[in-house]
Amino acid sequence: MRDEEFTLLGRNPVTEAFRAGKTIDRLFVQDGLHDGPISTILREAKKAGVKPEFVKKSRLDEIAGNENAASHQGVIAYLAAYHYSEVDEILEVAKEKGEDPFIFILDGIEDPHNLGAIIRTANLAGAHGVIIRERRAVGLTSTVAKTSAGALAYTKVAKVTNITKTIDELKDKGLWFVCADMGGESMYKLNLKGPIGLVIGNEGEGVSRLVHDRCDMIASIPMHGSIDSLNASVACGVLAYEIVRQRLNG
Amino acid sequence: MRDEEFTLLGRNPVTEAFRAGKTIDRLFVQDGLHDGPISTILREAKKAGVKPEFVKKSRLDEIAGNENAASHQGVIAYLAAYHYSEVDEILEVAKEKGEDPFIFILDGIEDPHNLGAIIRTANLAGAHGVIIRERRAVGLTSTVAKTSAGALAYTKVAKVTNITKTIDELKDKGLWFVCADMGGESMYKLNLKGPIGLVIGNEGEGVSRLVHDRCDMIASIPMHGSIDSLNASVACGVLAYEIVRQRLNG
Repeated sequence: MRDEEFTLLGRNPVTEAFRAGKTIDRLFVQDGLHDGPISTILREAKKAGVKPEFVKKSRLDEIAGNENAASHQGVIAYLAAYHYSEVDEILEVAKEKGEDPFIFILDGIEDPHNLGAIIRTANLAGAHGVIIRERRAVGLTSTVAKTSAGALAYTKVAKVTNITKTIDELKDKGLWFVCADMGGESMYKLNLKGPIGLVIGNEGEGVSRLVHDRCDMIASIPMHGSIDSLNASVACGVLAYEIVRQRLNG
Repeated sequence: MRDEEFTLLGRNPVTEAFRAGKTIDRLFVQDGLHDGPISTILREAKKAGVKPEFVKKSRLDEIAGNENAASHQGVIAYLAAYHYSEVDEILEVAKEKGEDPFIFILDGIEDPHNLGAIIRTANLAGAHGVIIRERRAVGLTSTVAKTSAGALAYTKVAKVTNITKTIDELKDKGLWFVCADMGGESMYKLNLKGPIGLVIGNEGEGVSRLVHDRCDMIASIPMHGSIDSLNASVACGVLAYEIVRQRLNG
């Protein structure tokens, strides 16, 4: 459920948000509409680098809620609760602190409570920032801000369109990548020191294949139980703190 | 928000649930009502060991939701989604496996997503069970069951009225207790092997003083950031896996 404050219904509110330079997380446009105001919104979206999602009217009615179905006029936007940083700004934080970069890369976290908890963990584990992907993932909504318990004000979050491309660029800058997945090596046996990107996959599907194949190390968290996997934010915390432990031990 | 399936509104449904031996998590009764059916419910509650919470009519209206305000008749019960185990059954699991007991003790977790994630962690970290407290804490609701991703079917959860008394009894049986709190010793420096109870405090207030004072060790998770604490289920995961690591290393 979204906080209404951050959902924009209708043509004027959405156009104005784009023109004011607000960060739009998602833009839904009714399939088949091509009139002037809609074209203006699509043009503004393109300028801002936001990919519109074309959906049926019934989907827009559903997002708006039944009482507000009349007011969306074929367009709804989700406003980000906070502004995004660039990946380079995250690397800059590490440089300023004189530390090896330590970045979380989230490959499709969908639950805002998980994203909030992960940003909180990034802050406390001493990671320099969090990279999230644009498509099929939750952005910086008000629920995320709340669940992060203030950490969002201190920890940089960047949003990228192509996670694998970002990983390749960061590899060129000397980072190693580790992801959590079954069938990997026990995290206690891996060398997790040095410049590192910790990759956490989607809640249901885990790390996508393209991202998985780019990781230098596959870490497994020891599992003694009857179920498959830890909650994504817990798995992220457990792995992040194994990195902290190894770094503390020099 | 509660799943409606597990909220019982009105005198007959609540009375029947008690008589059928269902596990009631919480019982709300309207202040000042003393008629026959209410007395019957209070008598059944006493037999079942459920402490009624006497509240104003407006609170009951709020829990029921406005459309259903007419149907609560001064009494609402929350039905547990799963049945609780006894503390001794948790110890029995450890004994059967020939392992030192490893138990999570939750001192007032209120968020069902946290409780679900913690039960999931208990299952995978090889803990033998989870003990929760009865008052001012979330019980085994349907949201908890769902968030536990199936772990609730495998991991025993006991509910106790007096956490400190339970800790004392478990100490007599050889368990050591560690809680996470600021100002403690780094968890990496503590000896967390052997029969252990891991205590996790409330999301906002942490571990209560009486429970804190009974713990043999206060563990601190290294914090590099600008905020106070990790999410409760993440902190639980990080500490639980430090215990796993130490046990694996013999």
